[in-house]
Amino acid sequence: MSELRVFGITGIGEIRPRDDLAGIISAAVADHHGGLLDGDVVVVTQKIVSKAEDRLVPVDPDDPLSHKALVEQETVRVLRRRGDLVISETKHGFVCANAGIDLSNVELGYAALLPEDSDRSARRIRDGIRARAGVEVAVIVSDTFGRTWRRGLTDVAIGCAGIGAILDHRGTTDTQGRELQVTEVAVVDELAGAADLVLGKASGLPVAVIRSVDPAWLRTGSVRDEIVRDPSEDLFR
Amino acid sequence: MSELRVFGITGIGEIRPRDDLAGIISAAVADHHGGLLDGDVVVVTQKIVSKAEDRLVPVDPDDPLSHKALVEQETVRVLRRRGDLVISETKHGFVCANAGIDLSNVELGYAALLPEDSDRSARRIRDGIRARAGVEVAVIVSDTFGRTWRRGLTDVAIGCAGIGAILDHRGTTDTQGRELQVTEVAVVDELAGAADLVLGKASGLPVAVIRSVDPAWLRTGSVRDEIVRDPSEDLFR
Repeated sequence: MSELRVFGITGIGEIRPRDDLAGIISAAVADHHGGLLDGDVVVVTQKIVSKAEDRLVPVDPDDPLSHKALVEQETVRVLRRRGDLVISETKHGFVCANAGIDLSNVELGYAALLPEDSDRSARRIRDGIRARAGVEVAVIVSDTFGRTWRRGLTDVAIGCAGIGAILDHRGTTDTQGRELQVTEVAVVDELAGAADLVLGKASGLPVAVIRSVDPAWLRTGSVRDEIVRDPSEDLFR
Repeated sequence: MSELRVFGITGIGEIRPRDDLAGIISAAVADHHGGLLDGDVVVVTQKIVSKAEDRLVPVDPDDPLSHKALVEQETVRVLRRRGDLVISETKHGFVCANAGIDLSNVELGYAALLPEDSDRSARRIRDGIRARAGVEVAVIVSDTFGRTWRRGLTDVAIGCAGIGAILDHRGTTDTQGRELQVTEVAVVDELAGAADLVLGKASGLPVAVIRSVDPAWLRTGSVRDEIVRDPSEDLFR
């Protein structure tokens, strides 16, 4: 029987610039959840990655223009504006609200920018966990994005390491022997969303572990290379 | 410790028109997985719901125009076309490729239309499971959709019952006491994606159970009322 376990990691305190995330996560899982295992998928929310990488920038909490200026600075292309909401493309190629800059769960007076390169952030955490805990895990950096035609937000992957971002079924056939039409599944996004179910926006838990994923998914992977859609193949930009 | 279990249900055979899905699912979970529990979330893929509701229509497997005509018939508005791909709005308000009509895992010579009303389908399955197994579960009907600016597909909810589609954090505060900016989480979509991780496109398993979700999520819910975005508030239609 194929069964996944999804659990939030307790015991991770407030993260500060230059904190060793891999060490902190390994220790918290060891202390509270029996330790990481080979093949675990560790989902780390963007906010603590940005904090550890010192991506905090000052913002005036009493001046909405201060946040707005930051959004413009992180934007390479504005797709739509409505009221205070800007849907824009970041230099990473993500299309999201307010260039991914959200003020929640950051110290007052600061905003957290997205990591410079979230695939690289994921690789560093994965390498650090290997060095500290001796296990081969996959790492996903997750963030919360809206969707074009559906209300509500979901968590998706903005970086990954040790797991393919896309599971490609091209060439496989369905139960009728017919070639599958749905061929590319964004498993890292489904994993990021699954992790959010145990993290929740208000709980403050910043890391989840997903155990027992298909070992075939564990390979070199990249959100930037596999998920970010090139504008030339994009029908809505 | 908050922990979810996600498992695919074995022992569900080929579904035919007018099959009793609630009975078949209850029996399969009882026979192979120890039975359903109060509070379980049962995720049922659209294909078998459409089959049980006899939404199969003939299509000529050798004539691509036959599929195309069906797509046009189920479309209320075309948003984009590129080659064979049509991004269109269905009468349900979903925006997706080919009006949600996919030929995979359907008998050759047939296509499966989306259920008329997937919230109603979910309610019927939920009521049937209560009647047959004596448990109060939530039900999600899931389908596989693409995303505007991200490659790869994920499973999302097209109908639900016994669970709120959106978890609304408006009015709650973050760890700093500041009102959360990310307020509406599409939990049914995150649950549908999590289920897909154990179903997979080629395995043929059509039902998953997610156990131990937050009981506060279990209420009356509707994908149509909560998730489908009204065109008037839509920036990309």
